[in-house]
Amino acid sequence: MNVEFINPFITALLNVIGMMGHTELTFEKPRIKKNDVSMGEVSGLIGMVGPKTKGSLSITFEKSLALRIMQRMLGEKSKVIDDEVIDMVGEITNMVSGGAKKELSKKGFDFDMATPVVVSGTNHIINHMHEGHIIIIPFSSDSGKAFIEICFD
Amino acid sequence: MNVEFINPFITALLNVIGMMGHTELTFEKPRIKKNDVSMGEVSGLIGMVGPKTKGSLSITFEKSLALRIMQRMLGEKSKVIDDEVIDMVGEITNMVSGGAKKELSKKGFDFDMATPVVVSGTNHIINHMHEGHIIIIPFSSDSGKAFIEICFD
Repeated sequence: MNVEFINPFITALLNVIGMMGHTELTFEKPRIKKNDVSMGEVSGLIGMVGPKTKGSLSITFEKSLALRIMQRMLGEKSKVIDDEVIDMVGEITNMVSGGAKKELSKKGFDFDMATPVVVSGTNHIINHMHEGHIIIIPFSSDSGKAFIEICFD
Repeated sequence: MNVEFINPFITALLNVIGMMGHTELTFEKPRIKKNDVSMGEVSGLIGMVGPKTKGSLSITFEKSLALRIMQRMLGEKSKVIDDEVIDMVGEITNMVSGGAKKELSKKGFDFDMATPVVVSGTNHIINHMHEGHIIIIPFSSDSGKAFIEICFD
């Protein structure tokens, strides 16, 4: 999986969280997931299927970051990951994969997205079932961390 | 979403767990998810994309049931949800969706599957982001419970 494929997902997350969540994320260089674990309290997952390829994307947020984005995006303050935060993470997942899809289709990579699933729960772990490499990209902010994990056949 | 669409997923799970896991599951009537929560410690998720439809499937296992199937399927006894149990749940998810896909394609419902994702963690909650109904099917056994949740546009 080359960087040309990964970058549109990074750009889309920075844009969505920056413009809608008014929160600046900085990211580390994408790397192959080995012993890394994306720890967080809420994750958006989406399956991707193309004519020649299939894969999965996850975006995991620490609780503090998810709640801060919620507050800045909708003006609503919550102390827990409630249904509104879950809906927001599902929407972010849709927007990030949709944004990346648009960019990638210009380069000839086509895929369709399934409906997103949001997982909540303290320190759940996401395991992409995939024979090839899984790429992990850690993001940090003034309010906590986020992680993208992506794999594609 | 009609029963004709749901039944192949139920049949596939009963077959996979019965034949490979040597464990008999009984199931309750499929119902629309309202306040139900599929509590478990390990869940397999898979996205589905067809020419006219898209959706998501989750299969959640209580820890006791996942460990028992592992023991009966592979003869390996584990006290925790480790990498082998996670791989097994990913494989079960693939087999259930693959089995259902085969049956449904005979009836003219076609879809492709993304790669599965397995979520582990005590009492995580799966939230299918979907505007329509989510169908939940509870299963029970001598070793614990499992839940299928499925939604399709």
